Parts: sequence; structure tokens; C-alpha cells
Amino acid sequence: MRLLKLTVAYDGTGLVGWQRQATGTSVQGLLEEALTRIDGQSVAVAGAGRTDAGVHALAQVASCAVETSLPCDTLRRALNAVLPAQVRVLAVEEAAPGFHARFSAHLKHYQYLFVDGPVLSPFVSRYAWHVLQPLDTGVMDAAAQHLVGTHDFSGFQSTGSEVAHAVRTVVRATVAEVRPPDELAAALIAPAGSRLVALDISADGFLRHMVRAIAGTLADIGMGRRDPGTVRQVLQERRREAAGATAPAHGLWLLRVDY
Amino acid sequence: MRLLKLTVAYDGTGLVGWQRQATGTSVQGLLEEALTRIDGQSVAVAGAGRTDAGVHALAQVASCAVETSLPCDTLRRALNAVLPAQVRVLAVEEAAPGFHARFSAHLKHYQYLFVDGPVLSPFVSRYAWHVLQPLDTGVMDAAAQHLVGTHDFSGFQSTGSEVAHAVRTVVRATVAEVRPPDELAAALIAPAGSRLVALDISADGFLRHMVRAIAGTLADIGMGRRDPGTVRQVLQERRREAAGATAPAHGLWLLRVDY
Repeated sequence: MRLLKLTVAYDGTGLVGWQRQATGTSVQGLLEEALTRIDGQSVAVAGAGRTDAGVHALAQVASCAVETSLPCDTLRRALNAVLPAQVRVLAVEEAAPGFHARFSAHLKHYQYLFVDGPVLSPFVSRYAWHVLQPLDTGVMDAAAQHLVGTHDFSGFQSTGSEVAHAVRTVVRATVAEVRPPDELAAALIAPAGSRLVALDISADGFLRHMVRAIAGTLADIGMGRRDPGTVRQVLQERRREAAGATAPAHGLWLLRVDY
Repeated sequence: MRLLKLTVAYDGTGLVGWQRQATGTSVQGLLEEALTRIDGQSVAVAGAGRTDAGVHALAQVASCAVETSLPCDTLRRALNAVLPAQVRVLAVEEAAPGFHARFSAHLKHYQYLFVDGPVLSPFVSRYAWHVLQPLDTGVMDAAAQHLVGTHDFSGFQSTGSEVAHAVRTVVRATVAEVRPPDELAAALIAPAGSRLVALDISADGFLRHMVRAIAGTLADIGMGRRDPGTVRQVLQERRREAAGATAPAHGLWLLRVDY
């Protein structure tokens, strides 16, 4: 068998997420069906991050074992010919022996996009969470700094989740306005009076809904609805109720996975 | 009656275009229904440019007469509450007496987006035309220069169109690569090996399918499939058959209208 590493971009709109479900279209399901069709045997695909329904990926990573001897570029073209346009295989590479998209990952980089202001651009509505009050990015960024380090993140995981260890190491957590390069790009992503704001967060792993719970909490802080000390408090008390609501999935992006 | 100027952004995907049709959803129809509902009388809306089915607008301009005395900002909010997310009213302003979105327009700015390279980003597939061969933007830009000036553009209008005068004045026509501000934006719009290329064209008016016929011709020139002299030849001979195919609607953007 031949081990492959796939880099995949997808627009999560309308999908049930990365993981195959009983009903609905999943990225894993689409890839497995396409690979099985090309390979002539049943192919199982493992993903680096199990993104939720509606979450987007710029470079999700997947691994799988295949029997075909087709060159990597030919495989990429064949996969893209079979997959819907909203899922694109950016690269197919030979993987080192023992490679596993999830277990070999060192660091995952996520971004959560907010857009404030009175009118939501139709070109951003599927990709960023529209908050109605202006966000104070300075206060949000300062609050986000408390996430950096090795902590028990149970307070930021969805209630009902059960994982053996809720300790994760966040190496980066910043909040900043995304400044478009020119007037045109600015008009495209955020009409006058609006701003696009990004939370960038990188960690060795994430709990279920962790980035979205953090994004919801930081949005409350940025709108002045919640005390900036909330982040520290949630980390200390490990109580989900102390944090903000889970932010909508469509603002979340899996940017990159490092190996 | 009170005369209003509306600035409207829309994602044209799935719409039949600006103009109301016998069937399907049009931007004009959506605006007229929303305004009629708010105003309590039948409101007719005129647009600056009758964009085709699938064409997008960053700032289309519309004019209409209403009876309501609601402040402009309240009207904008009411309209956006009624309209689908893919159509957004960016601004409502009081218009000067005699203002008409189409007849008062001095200059219209369109952009046509191409993307080349082996893989089409799922985030760009609705907004740019994917060409499979690399585009030579220098050759395209040089060819586009011949469009600038006052010419009879009959060779670039769709066959069967009948307008009294096919003479238009193009004040700007450039082709250049769109360079993303950072690595992330680059990955978003164009995966490795791909480039986003924009044709920017501004004129006092456009014939039916004119920008798309120009875009199709320039793409052929950029891929080396057609002689760079074609643009001049089409302008001189005024024969549609001498030009390239009409490029797909989803790559076209109405950027701005000047008054």
C-alpha cells in the first residue's frame, strides 16, 4: 500500500462538516467516495481536524492508503474532476511511512472572522460572523493573550464533550483588524463603517467547539458586554457557563496544519 | 414624491440579473417588492446598469420615487431586513431633482476577474472565470489599450442586439495581476501556481455583453490562442465573429458608477 498526504480546501457552506455522518454531505465522505472510485478498493481517509458543519478550510490535511500507482498530480486532477467545486484537492504528496494526518500533527492554525458595522457585505456573509456592535480589537487582543500557554481548556469546550485530557498548549492567540490592501478590496469585504476582525489561534490541539467558544467570549468582551477578565476566569474555574455563547460555525477557518 | 438614490451590492449567483424577468429572481424585482411593501404604493426602480444573470455588483446605483417620510438610514435598515442576504442596500440618499440612475450616469466601472492555474479555489469559483492556461497579462494589457478612446464597439456586442448608437467612450482599460496583501489572502483566492487577473474597464456606457466579449477576446490573447492585433481588428471591422467567445457572467463585476 502507498501512503498519501492530501491538502484540501473547502467552503463548508451546506456541508455537515469534515466527518462522515448518517445523513448529509461530509468532506471525508466525498473524499472517500472519490478515492474509492479511482482506486477500485475501499479507501478510508483520516483528517487532521474534524471541522464542524459550516466551518471552512484553507488547507485541511488528510492521509490515506491507496493501491493505485497513478502519479500524485494525476490523482489530484482525477479527484478534482470527481469532487464538487466547493471541495478542492490542492496537493497530493507521497507521505513518509507512519504518517497520520491527525496523530502526526504538531500545530493547528485556526482563524475566526468577525465583521462589525451596519451592513453585511453579501460576499462575506458566508465567511464571517456579523456582530452588530463595533468591536474593540485592543481589548479583545489583550484578553486573548491569557489563552497563550498550557492550560486546561474545559471551560471552553462544548458541554457534554468528554475527552481524557482537556489540557492543550496555545502558542498564539491574537485579535486584529484585517486591513484590505486597497479601496476595492475594502468595499468587497466590508462596506463603509464596517471592519473585518480576525482571531488567529494556534495550538497543538483543540477541544470540541473550543475556538468558537473563545470567539463568542471575545466578541462579548469586544462589544463591552462582558468583563475582559472573563478569559482568565474561565481558564481558572473551568466552567463553560462563565464563558460566552458558541460563535456561529461559518466564521471559523482551519488555515493550516504543521507537521 | 421624494426621489432616492440607492447604492446596492449583490452576489449575482443564481439571480436572473438586474432586470425583472417573467420568471426567476432579479435584483430590480427584489428591490421593487421591498420598497412597495415599505412604501405602501407601487414603487418602480431604475438601475444604472442592467447586469446579466450571474453578474455581481459592488456598488450598483438605483433611483426611485417614494412617498414615505422615513429617514434614509431607517429605510436602508428596513430594506435590508426584507431583502435576502445576497442583496444588500449599502446606502440610501436623497437624490437631487431630476436624478436618474441610468441617464444621469457619467461613467461606469466594471471589472472582469480571471483565475488561471491548475486548481480553482472554492472561495473564488463563483466570482472569477477559471482559465486552464497561464495568462500573459503584459500582452493582454497592451491589447486592452486599443480599447481606450471613442469607438464603434459593435464588434464587441452580442449578435442580435440592436442599439441606435454603438459608439462608446472607454476611458480606461487595463489588465493586471491582482496581488494579494499576504500569504493567507493569496491562499484564499489562488492556491499555489494560480494567479488572479483583473481587467478593469471604465466607459460612459457599455453595449450588451460588451465587457464579456472583450474579456473572452483578451483571454484568448493572453493564452496565445489569438493574435494581439485582434482587438484593433474587431474595432475596425465591427464583426462579432472576429472577436473571442463571450466570457462567463460570473467573472463580471459592476464596481462603481460615477455621477
